[in-house]
Amino acid sequence: MSDSYREAGVDLAAADRAKDRLKALVDSTRDANTLSELGAFGGLYAVPEGVDAPVLVSSADGVGTKLKAAFMTGRHDTVGQDLVNHCVNDILVQGARALFFLDYLATGRMDESVVTDVVTGVALACRENGCALLGGETAQMPDFYAEDEYDLAGFIVGIAPRGGIIDGTSIEAGNVLVGLRSSGLHTNGYTLARRIVFDRMGLGVDDAFPELDRSVGDVLLDVHRSYARQLLPLVRDGVVRGLVHNTGGGLPGNLPRVLPGGLGAVVERSSWAPGPLFDVLREGGGVDRDEMYRVFNMGAGMVLVLAPDRVDGVMERLRDAGESPWVMGEIEAVEAGDPEVRYAD
Amino acid sequence: MSDSYREAGVDLAAADRAKDRLKALVDSTRDANTLSELGAFGGLYAVPEGVDAPVLVSSADGVGTKLKAAFMTGRHDTVGQDLVNHCVNDILVQGARALFFLDYLATGRMDESVVTDVVTGVALACRENGCALLGGETAQMPDFYAEDEYDLAGFIVGIAPRGGIIDGTSIEAGNVLVGLRSSGLHTNGYTLARRIVFDRMGLGVDDAFPELDRSVGDVLLDVHRSYARQLLPLVRDGVVRGLVHNTGGGLPGNLPRVLPGGLGAVVERSSWAPGPLFDVLREGGGVDRDEMYRVFNMGAGMVLVLAPDRVDGVMERLRDAGESPWVMGEIEAVEAGDPEVRYAD
Repeated sequence: MSDSYREAGVDLAAADRAKDRLKALVDSTRDANTLSELGAFGGLYAVPEGVDAPVLVSSADGVGTKLKAAFMTGRHDTVGQDLVNHCVNDILVQGARALFFLDYLATGRMDESVVTDVVTGVALACRENGCALLGGETAQMPDFYAEDEYDLAGFIVGIAPRGGIIDGTSIEAGNVLVGLRSSGLHTNGYTLARRIVFDRMGLGVDDAFPELDRSVGDVLLDVHRSYARQLLPLVRDGVVRGLVHNTGGGLPGNLPRVLPGGLGAVVERSSWAPGPLFDVLREGGGVDRDEMYRVFNMGAGMVLVLAPDRVDGVMERLRDAGESPWVMGEIEAVEAGDPEVRYAD
Repeated sequence: MSDSYREAGVDLAAADRAKDRLKALVDSTRDANTLSELGAFGGLYAVPEGVDAPVLVSSADGVGTKLKAAFMTGRHDTVGQDLVNHCVNDILVQGARALFFLDYLATGRMDESVVTDVVTGVALACRENGCALLGGETAQMPDFYAEDEYDLAGFIVGIAPRGGIIDGTSIEAGNVLVGLRSSGLHTNGYTLARRIVFDRMGLGVDDAFPELDRSVGDVLLDVHRSYARQLLPLVRDGVVRGLVHNTGGGLPGNLPRVLPGGLGAVVERSSWAPGPLFDVLREGGGVDRDEMYRVFNMGAGMVLVLAPDRVDGVMERLRDAGESPWVMGEIEAVEAGDPEVRYAD
């Protein structure tokens, strides 16, 4: 029994070849604090100087079943961007800028070109967010994943001065909620979205998505955007009291995560149009309106909590940065037992 | 279509209940630098003071197909320990002590007791290694994982003073290799080991493992040990020139990872007995001897590279710490084209 490991479905030589290709991608994300080369047991990153009482802010996440859209279309260079941007947003809402990222890619059978495509997306988003791709793990697990399928998870570390951490404790009744547009479904609600689009509506990935001049595959793969470039300057200036990344659980699940006790949020759903993507999913799936807002971001990917006297200035700066912000509600006092998020309409 | 998300196989309420149980486990790992509570978008960890030119050392890893042994036995409280200890060892070999850890657990169907068991193991090993469990992601992906199966990955961040990073650059010809015993297969070679034990030898998880007075399931689930308690004092004292965590690829795959150019390692396989576990796998699988050393750790889980005048003192300290270290070979000069690791026997 020679080459036993290969017979058992694990190809170490293919893993080595993939590693060579990945090196150039990893190197494209290096910065002055990156001290290690790919292949070390751990990645090395010098703690940046000049941050007062530095706090590391860290998050782990996956892409979830959005990966199925990549499998169905054969496009693997976007899911890595989804993953990095999701993680960047998750630490951004606590006031941190990204330092470095690591990925975990588990496959049934190592396909070098798929691995390279996935990491190409990871590296692109790392560069866009000024974040080093410090390492990762590519695991071949033949008995776990279907042929040509994989799972992808990521892990980010960022930094903030302790005094710059956004924890929501300064939020008060009367503070204003300002929304920023999402870029599609981001990475949430895909299990339901796929069921609606493929099973109930009977569409294929190459069909046109109703009301949109694009294919179903393209719409489902729209990249989960990063808000770091637009929001970090506001965070640094200390003008943001709370930030909410609107992911799984939607507004009712995520707004309470930043609210101090005794406060709730009232959201005016008529203040924005979610857009045709969400309209089609709601109608095609016969989904209850409130359920739509629990599962999907409904066009609002990020929510800022601002003191009223900051609203005009912040919205102007956001428009200058290319955003289309809108006032979507406000913070109110609530009694024990009241819902933390209620809809005005 | 109300409760659409649950119908689609994603149970947000179960996810919430699991989160409550996890909170107590996470809290058991808190230390003075842990600034966040579970449920924040990202975990917060203050950079420890008093470390000269602090460098963050980070690694991502999975448990691999060792998870199948957990599925077959229904024991889910050890794989989390495997994962944390593996990650702790990966940054230890670069001179770092662990600060915090995050896990990624992806399942087909959320079984709260399984999730709790897995995280119990993660939290136990975090406590043992003085490492905070800072957060993580539990993903329900019904179309990815078989019912009652899951994948588990982890991310660790540690710290070392820049001058205390072990990068192997001080290794010279004539340096001595000292081995430390592994605690079974650790987390490598499970695809082959399962094929041998279950397919070729026809054993079940409850059968006695040949030559060992324990069940197949228990032997396969032996926890991947941490070497941090024994080795961190030596690392701090600067008496270790190189450390090799003997994982996938075995000694020929891992020793070269710390060797400067022009150097190789000669290993005397007769200097230690791998033990009955590896003897049984080799005979039961008819596996070539060299292949065994590429796939499995063969009883040597960690290798130290020491200057000759340090060997006696370090081995005495290791014995005092409960280890059974042995001299397993040495570093030699090699010409271009020579193998980086050769066996003396």
